[in-house]
Amino acid sequence: MLKNDLVLRAARGEKTERIPVWLMRQAGRILPEYRATRSRAKNFIEFVKNPELACEVTIQPVDILGVDAAIIFSDILVIPEAMGLPYQMLEAKGPWFENTIKNKIDIDTLRIANENDLRYVMDAIKLTKQNLNNRVPLIGFAGAPWTIFAYMIEGSGSKTFSKAKQFLYTEPQLSHLLLEKITESTINYLKGQVKSGADMIQLFDSWAGVLAPDQFYEFSLKYMSRICDAIQPLVPVTVFAKDAHYAIEEISKIKCNTIGLDWTIDPSTARKLSNGKVLQGNADPCLLYADEKVILTETKKMLAAFGPLNYIANLGHGLYPDIDKEKVKFFVECIKSYKF
Amino acid sequence: MLKNDLVLRAARGEKTERIPVWLMRQAGRILPEYRATRSRAKNFIEFVKNPELACEVTIQPVDILGVDAAIIFSDILVIPEAMGLPYQMLEAKGPWFENTIKNKIDIDTLRIANENDLRYVMDAIKLTKQNLNNRVPLIGFAGAPWTIFAYMIEGSGSKTFSKAKQFLYTEPQLSHLLLEKITESTINYLKGQVKSGADMIQLFDSWAGVLAPDQFYEFSLKYMSRICDAIQPLVPVTVFAKDAHYAIEEISKIKCNTIGLDWTIDPSTARKLSNGKVLQGNADPCLLYADEKVILTETKKMLAAFGPLNYIANLGHGLYPDIDKEKVKFFVECIKSYKF
Repeated sequence: MLKNDLVLRAARGEKTERIPVWLMRQAGRILPEYRATRSRAKNFIEFVKNPELACEVTIQPVDILGVDAAIIFSDILVIPEAMGLPYQMLEAKGPWFENTIKNKIDIDTLRIANENDLRYVMDAIKLTKQNLNNRVPLIGFAGAPWTIFAYMIEGSGSKTFSKAKQFLYTEPQLSHLLLEKITESTINYLKGQVKSGADMIQLFDSWAGVLAPDQFYEFSLKYMSRICDAIQPLVPVTVFAKDAHYAIEEISKIKCNTIGLDWTIDPSTARKLSNGKVLQGNADPCLLYADEKVILTETKKMLAAFGPLNYIANLGHGLYPDIDKEKVKFFVECIKSYKF
Repeated sequence: MLKNDLVLRAARGEKTERIPVWLMRQAGRILPEYRATRSRAKNFIEFVKNPELACEVTIQPVDILGVDAAIIFSDILVIPEAMGLPYQMLEAKGPWFENTIKNKIDIDTLRIANENDLRYVMDAIKLTKQNLNNRVPLIGFAGAPWTIFAYMIEGSGSKTFSKAKQFLYTEPQLSHLLLEKITESTINYLKGQVKSGADMIQLFDSWAGVLAPDQFYEFSLKYMSRICDAIQPLVPVTVFAKDAHYAIEEISKIKCNTIGLDWTIDPSTARKLSNGKVLQGNADPCLLYADEKVILTETKKMLAAFGPLNYIANLGHGLYPDIDKEKVKFFVECIKSYKF
């Protein structure tokens, strides 16, 4: 039995004594402890593949920041790698794929990943569950199929992902073929995560925002919906489609429990459009650069606008690496001590 | 008298025989003719500062693509330079400032730019007006104060502009001081452009989308509004705040004629929120990678949704450099031949 199950109860729409909070990228460079663990791995990929190190950094923010959930330390791009498309993480440049997907042969060559291809994540989840000792829930995650597709075609990060979008416009059938394979792999992967102990799941559609609405519905939401159909009967699922401001109503129709929101979304607008779903978010990460007075005022505004029911407090995107961890702790405390 | 004043009449809300069209970044790398002219300048900054070359590339898309307006070739970052903060344009990296704004002394050191500091733009506009020979209107432009501010603090492009946003959160008063200076400079600059012959003006708030809504209203829209107050009595003004999806209604309250929209905005939603303003946009630039059949279908959908009144067809952002110019011509033709 979990000692603190606030996030899970909130995700199921149940009443909670206070608003629960966790933070995207809480296991990350804002913590000196993370940087120390990170330095013990040869490179980022080795770091991700080492269950002991992944477990360590996953638990750090629970101890240090006092958040109400842990999220397993990993990377969304383990899926392309497990499908046969390896990547590197270049210093200051981000992910980079030596090979990208260009045609049907490339797609046919990819395999459907299963949990055995991602054994190291399963091991990290099991170890973390054990070491967390039921203090808080453990969140598992995956990239949304469109976001994974975008990297597999583009081969790196991009402001526009114009190559990936070009593929959608010129090769819609091949696009669906690839998205099917990614979706199937992701479902296997997430089922494995749940079996290994993940208490809930978040899908990150980090590049939803580059798509036109019709493209989002056809090439992204449809596949996230299929993943929700497979996973939501097992554990609560959160869909975070960054910058897909136009899609809240449509997202609320799929079988997710919680909708993650970025900081450009007005809470009351989101409430109107989201059909009773639980909402998660959405402070601007840059707010945590401000002094405590400003953080307190803005955080209270956010909590009053979203809460108290059907709400999990978070940022509207991940923490930036240069944010002072004391400010992050203060933000978490503001939320935990807030009274309606 | 202009031979083709469709864009101007549409911007004033008048009825036009057909929907007018121009394209953001139409004077750019998609044209081999542009690349040939570009190669005659030592570097990008010299290119921008050379009125003959600027005039040449400004007129090229009128001849080659058949668009209904020219937009003067220049760069939004001429304003920081004219205020005393020079920049370089690095190959494949974009703009880079050796010095950035960090404190009050830095801000106090900046001067208010006037049209004499930007004589080369005035000369380019005069020469272009002369050579255009009244075929189509000439659009002048400037960056919105927030976008200019963002570069002056950040010192380069950025996915998050977290340094610039940090400055807003930690130094709101200094932020306003700097925005005031940029706004005053921009008004001088745009008045000069109009005096030199610009028939209408567009403000580009390229980085509106990184701001939280409250920040956009306080640090961006307020200053764009002041620019509209100064310029709109002279010529029509278009405000293009990229990714500020939440702000259409508020933008429609300032003294602009036209609101530019990116491709994530649904036309009918924009119509409802925009209080009778003229709308401009908003095809996904990546649509122009598709085959002609798809381009035609999607373009017709867009025109039917926006038109025929109070509408100027355009993309939702600038053309990408690797788009085939034949596809661009086809897109322009689809619009020009469309019948309601």
